[in-house]
Amino acid sequence: MRASAFDLSSLFASTLPPPAAKWNGAARYNFTGGHNDPDMVPVEALRQAADSVLAREGQSLATYNVGHGPLGYLPLREFIAEKLKRDAGIECSADEVLLVSGSLQALDLVNGVFCERGDTVIYEEDCYQGSINRMTRMGVNIVGIPLDEGGMKMDALATALADLKARGVRPKFIYTIPTVQNPTGTIMSEARRRELLALSQEYGVPLFEDDCYADLIWSGKRPPALYAMRNGDGVVYIGSFSKSVAPALRVGYIVAKWNVLSRALALKTDAGSASLEQMLLAEFCKSQFEQHVPKLRAALRAKLETLMESLNEQFGTAAEFSDAPGGIFLWVKLPGQVDAMQLYQKALAAGVAINPGPEWSVNTAHSRSHIRLCFANLPHEDIRAGVALLAEVCRNEFGVPARSANIQKQV
Amino acid sequence: MRASAFDLSSLFASTLPPPAAKWNGAARYNFTGGHNDPDMVPVEALRQAADSVLAREGQSLATYNVGHGPLGYLPLREFIAEKLKRDAGIECSADEVLLVSGSLQALDLVNGVFCERGDTVIYEEDCYQGSINRMTRMGVNIVGIPLDEGGMKMDALATALADLKARGVRPKFIYTIPTVQNPTGTIMSEARRRELLALSQEYGVPLFEDDCYADLIWSGKRPPALYAMRNGDGVVYIGSFSKSVAPALRVGYIVAKWNVLSRALALKTDAGSASLEQMLLAEFCKSQFEQHVPKLRAALRAKLETLMESLNEQFGTAAEFSDAPGGIFLWVKLPGQVDAMQLYQKALAAGVAINPGPEWSVNTAHSRSHIRLCFANLPHEDIRAGVALLAEVCRNEFGVPARSANIQKQV
Repeated sequence: MRASAFDLSSLFASTLPPPAAKWNGAARYNFTGGHNDPDMVPVEALRQAADSVLAREGQSLATYNVGHGPLGYLPLREFIAEKLKRDAGIECSADEVLLVSGSLQALDLVNGVFCERGDTVIYEEDCYQGSINRMTRMGVNIVGIPLDEGGMKMDALATALADLKARGVRPKFIYTIPTVQNPTGTIMSEARRRELLALSQEYGVPLFEDDCYADLIWSGKRPPALYAMRNGDGVVYIGSFSKSVAPALRVGYIVAKWNVLSRALALKTDAGSASLEQMLLAEFCKSQFEQHVPKLRAALRAKLETLMESLNEQFGTAAEFSDAPGGIFLWVKLPGQVDAMQLYQKALAAGVAINPGPEWSVNTAHSRSHIRLCFANLPHEDIRAGVALLAEVCRNEFGVPARSANIQKQV
Repeated sequence: MRASAFDLSSLFASTLPPPAAKWNGAARYNFTGGHNDPDMVPVEALRQAADSVLAREGQSLATYNVGHGPLGYLPLREFIAEKLKRDAGIECSADEVLLVSGSLQALDLVNGVFCERGDTVIYEEDCYQGSINRMTRMGVNIVGIPLDEGGMKMDALATALADLKARGVRPKFIYTIPTVQNPTGTIMSEARRRELLALSQEYGVPLFEDDCYADLIWSGKRPPALYAMRNGDGVVYIGSFSKSVAPALRVGYIVAKWNVLSRALALKTDAGSASLEQMLLAEFCKSQFEQHVPKLRAALRAKLETLMESLNEQFGTAAEFSDAPGGIFLWVKLPGQVDAMQLYQKALAAGVAINPGPEWSVNTAHSRSHIRLCFANLPHEDIRAGVALLAEVCRNEFGVPARSANIQKQV
């Protein structure tokens, strides 16, 4: 065995995050991650779509972006423009749509256009972990705004904007998930959206609208997008097919006016995102999207009901939550003695993966006893068994819930 | 028309590159870009592969990375490990392979592991534009090493390393494309590779081996990879399927020991690259890769011959080049009075896109009259017509070639 010539770690950049841990497979009961329902992947329709688009346009794979230019595959951009008009009230052309590698690349590109170290942005207080982590990595300050059952609180936002202005700080943007907020599940009303837009204008702070879950509202009805209500002026919009079709297809998009889109595009130096996935989605969506989504919603709604029933059965009044109006996750408040970070560790050791509230919030005191439970990926029986196991771990660690469901039933 | 509330540009980050230009379609004769031969996309085999893998594993698209963890789809990583052992002499397991979104993401991740503003790296003097641009954007200094017909010159590298050491500078890595170098097409011999490895060890500077073209050597024979010759110690290796199958499938890979791979993985915050393209490639490659690549090579070799014939016919002795041993591009030296940047502009206006040497070199004086011509994407007749048009533009601008082929033929 030859000795190593190099201590490579002495050559690493000074600002690296910790190394990734080796992956040892998913937990037995995985309530984390934006995974979807395997039974609802439209496999037969995707097979047909793949076959027809490859037969017709497969040769174009020899050319980057299949010859459709850096914004990506035109038929998918056209579908998105039509869909956004129909569902979200957005009037945009295919040339205002940039196809990217999932909405995570959209976050990176938009963040990169506006933010640098030392900047300030405004977020919902409880918020998507991946968005929070990106700002932490960039050295950008996050000001968190509390939420209520209608989303970001406008009185708190007004106070924060006024405070920042008094301190000479102009935030780069207000980042919001107004439609099925992650993790709280709230939907901001059209009236509150108007208030938000007015504050955005008053303080000259643009809106960054993350709209990945809007297809998954049980009622099928959504308020207009913020982007629609201002015709894109001072708003950047991102979306994805991860939640409505399949997350392993890494296809997201940015909708913005050209002055912003041309800047995001200049930061996108990857010679285009996966074209085949764009082609497949365009082919599938044109004829199938409208039939597919209601079926997916029904399946997800049924899983949420199983989750809520299980929580009621296993945790009783110890688990507080609102019936989510859509989406793939539930935000649950446990009693104050529960340290969600500790519960997360102990549950993982027992085979149950959950998201601890402090990782999904910029207010770790407020979120100390909250957990996020994703319900799309697990079969119904695993949702029940996983919640039962989680309750057992929680009781052993924190004394709540006081007694198990089985014992209660025996009484 | 409502006035805009925002001058968004006042909120942009201060270090942005210039905005992207609107895309107006490819040039009539496009000799740029790593595009491949449309006729050689194995459409029927890809259709079969897509259908069988979707039928068998389509449901797994509901889970990020189709449940195979952050390194990506396991059967493709296994194929890559086998292929690299057979072709390049690399002994690695599937867990030393990280699947990424094309080798451009591989560049970003490896650069990010090692480099930060003010660092120094060593490059081949004439080099891939995308690699050069990345370093410029990061504020990293590039020291260029001249090439000869055998690739990077070892005497020049030794001098540069000694000079840097004397100045107290330890470069972060030596970046090299040793096998079908881009743009010069050179292949570094095994003997010179040993010299390179010895210098790398002597100065404690790791090697970053970019190996995207090795499948396209006409002879089918390649020297062992640098990674193989040191069993990965002090070497990071990247590869791609863009050149051997199709570039619009954005699938590349990093091969590295875990101490480096775990750092690259920590920087990869996109929840995995496109899984369907990985699945399709794995399914196709298992049974078809070995038959496909020789056919592709033969087609590309024929196009290179057309290009060289056309250059000889149209430019005569004014165009100097070596018969490339493989790949998809030819590096051509024109007479000293030709300003390649100016030729590039004029030719583009006439409908011929070429890569001007100064954009593919860190020595813009040396590369002033060079151009890079990619030949894979154009039909044979367009190669001929495009070269004829290029010669006409060049003659009009610079007086060389002195007379057109047609006139010469009339003499």
